[in-house]
Amino acid sequence: MIITLTTDFGLADPFVGIMKGVMLGIAPNAQLVDITHEIRSYDILQAAFVIESSYRYFPDGTVHVVVVDPGVGSARRPIAVPADGHTFVGPDNGVLSNVLPADVSVYWIQNEKLFLSSVSQTFHGRDIFAPVAAHLAQGIAIESVGARITDFVTKAVPGPGPKDGKLVGAVLRVDKYGNVITNLRRQHLGPGFAIRVAGRSITRFCSNFSEGRPGEFFAVEGSTGYIELALNQGSAAERLNVETGAEIELESPSSNQ
Amino acid sequence: MIITLTTDFGLADPFVGIMKGVMLGIAPNAQLVDITHEIRSYDILQAAFVIESSYRYFPDGTVHVVVVDPGVGSARRPIAVPADGHTFVGPDNGVLSNVLPADVSVYWIQNEKLFLSSVSQTFHGRDIFAPVAAHLAQGIAIESVGARITDFVTKAVPGPGPKDGKLVGAVLRVDKYGNVITNLRRQHLGPGFAIRVAGRSITRFCSNFSEGRPGEFFAVEGSTGYIELALNQGSAAERLNVETGAEIELESPSSNQ
Amino acid sequence: MIITLTTDFGLADPFVGIMKGVMLGIAPNAQLVDITHEIRSYDILQAAFVIESSYRYFPDGTVHVVVVDPGVGSARRPIAVPADGHTFVGPDNGVLSNVLPADVSVYWIQNEKLFLSSVSQTFHGRDIFAPVAAHLAQGIAIESVGARITDFVTKAVPGPGPKDGKLVGAVLRVDKYGNVITNLRRQHLGPGFAIRVAGRSITRFCSNFSEGRPGEFFAVEGSTGYIELALNQGSAAERLNVETGAEIELESPSSNQ
Repeated sequence: MIITLTTDFGLADPFVGIMKGVMLGIAPNAQLVDITHEIRSYDILQAAFVIESSYRYFPDGTVHVVVVDPGVGSARRPIAVPADGHTFVGPDNGVLSNVLPADVSVYWIQNEKLFLSSVSQTFHGRDIFAPVAAHLAQGIAIESVGARITDFVTKAVPGPGPKDGKLVGAVLRVDKYGNVITNLRRQHLGPGFAIRVAGRSITRFCSNFSEGRPGEFFAVEGSTGYIELALNQGSAAERLNVETGAEIELESPSSNQ
Repeated sequence: MIITLTTDFGLADPFVGIMKGVMLGIAPNAQLVDITHEIRSYDILQAAFVIESSYRYFPDGTVHVVVVDPGVGSARRPIAVPADGHTFVGPDNGVLSNVLPADVSVYWIQNEKLFLSSVSQTFHGRDIFAPVAAHLAQGIAIESVGARITDFVTKAVPGPGPKDGKLVGAVLRVDKYGNVITNLRRQHLGPGFAIRVAGRSITRFCSNFSEGRPGEFFAVEGSTGYIELALNQGSAAERLNVETGAEIELESPSSNQ
Repeated sequence: MIITLTTDFGLADPFVGIMKGVMLGIAPNAQLVDITHEIRSYDILQAAFVIESSYRYFPDGTVHVVVVDPGVGSARRPIAVPADGHTFVGPDNGVLSNVLPADVSVYWIQNEKLFLSSVSQTFHGRDIFAPVAAHLAQGIAIESVGARITDFVTKAVPGPGPKDGKLVGAVLRVDKYGNVITNLRRQHLGPGFAIRVAGRSITRFCSNFSEGRPGEFFAVEGSTGYIELALNQGSAAERLNVETGAEIELESPSSNQ
């Protein structure tokens, strides 16, 4: 069985290694895979986007632990969720919003027998999420973690919306190469489209990064299915000076938005 | 069997991957877990603190390799140490100080049959520590690495000490969120305590991070058992402008220090 | 079986985790080892150097995936190469140049049955390289990936060359400690050598890092077999202000260059 980890813990502190120690104590044969630990501190939407982009590339039955948890130790609940053949574990703060199907069952993790014997108020990744995920990977029934709840928290990644005949969207994320991932999709881009961002206008669509001419901004359908603004072997984000959350405008969008 | 790695090698160079290749050549079924590779270069005390905070979350029988090794290639000895049901491997420079029990047995690694066939003077992580750890994980007797020694090196993390009716402590580490981990513990904080740091006075104790009001500094018992100075969703270290080693003062401490 | 990964993807994006999910769906028992994901973006020579330095420390039969791929989605071919008992998978852009023996067989990966069902134009690491590597680790014949080709791309790391009675070399890489890895080797350094770099002259050879006196630049044979310029517990690269590609000159070299 596979357990993935997505957190804002970074890799300089021992937090991730400690979670893995706890997991391997319970599930000695688990395959542990890091998705990323470099989620921006406390950025729930960023984690929701990353796990949505990633989970489906893992085999069915994988357990995904997502810990971006500014409310650790407070009344916010830990939850476990079966969805699309996978199991997700994390705090009930919206971090799992993007993987919840309409008919989802969400379980409030309350069964203390599954926790570490001593539970801190500052590191539930170690004390609750890691051991519960490992027990789930070992095959315990998800119902055994606790009662089903219906008032769980969801946070929606804002989609692009119409305004004055344009479509207004946002930057979801900037990747390591400086590609600017927007919340637009291919079908939003009609012929003769223009994406306005940071005072510039991007009007070319390329099918891959190396089609772009040196220094030319272009749009490309990224590997997550979203439109990205890019430069061939350069950082579009740096040159445009934009970051996560920046507004973009699409003119002359396709009719089938 | 599990082998953990704690080093100051970083992740940009191939050093860690190479160590893992060596280990898997000897112990093909080992579970390899990174604790961290972002120990500050040459910072022995930092590594000693990190392995102390982490090892007990791994199952008994785990082998922990700790390589922060400014004296690589010199006369400093490589050692292997059984302690608390775990086995530790690293240079004899103090890096294992915090996990050595009073009645510890320390073995000087000298059995060249356990090394790579060619030993460099600059990368004992690859040539000595990785293969010896893998052999230990495979079950060889620890006595087979070499003779027991008693003149091993220890370095103590300085505890807080009394001065002019106050308790003077230090910053052990700053974590990814900017939480300032001190060497104070919960029992040091009496009622009406005040922690002086960088010209400020911190007088509130919270049980978790989200209890803090926006912009308010507070103390919290961190997951390592040490008192941390924190801000709710902000970097206390940055706002206080303190780093590892900075002095702190505790006024009105508890009587049972 | 072991699969290693060497990329310029970084660890902040989920790219590496996604590749691992794909691999484990095909090869559930694979041991996945990161060599590094911090290759400078698009730097093919850097990746070629890193995989050359690393692969031989893994057991025979290991599959190494190397993805630094500025031409992803263009006409550049994906290739698989058996060499020295290992198997290498990556784009045909020179990234595997340093591990190709004279009598190498290079296979053009064309068998779409081995790919993910949908292949993007921007992430062949996920859609082609990961699944093909996993199938190879599972034991499929390398001939089954596609036809053998002979017009594959090679890029040579420039060796040092003579000029005006001196030997002119270059900086291959700077490591985490600031050690400056050159393309000189031990046999290039005759008695009374002087390495000129950034206006300084380095004339001392040490056998390990701790032999250097405080503040003194020296040359040392690094763990890759190349000469490194170093400071004892300091960053030579920072103090010299040099980076990858910088020119160095060797005076009074040995006669057997």
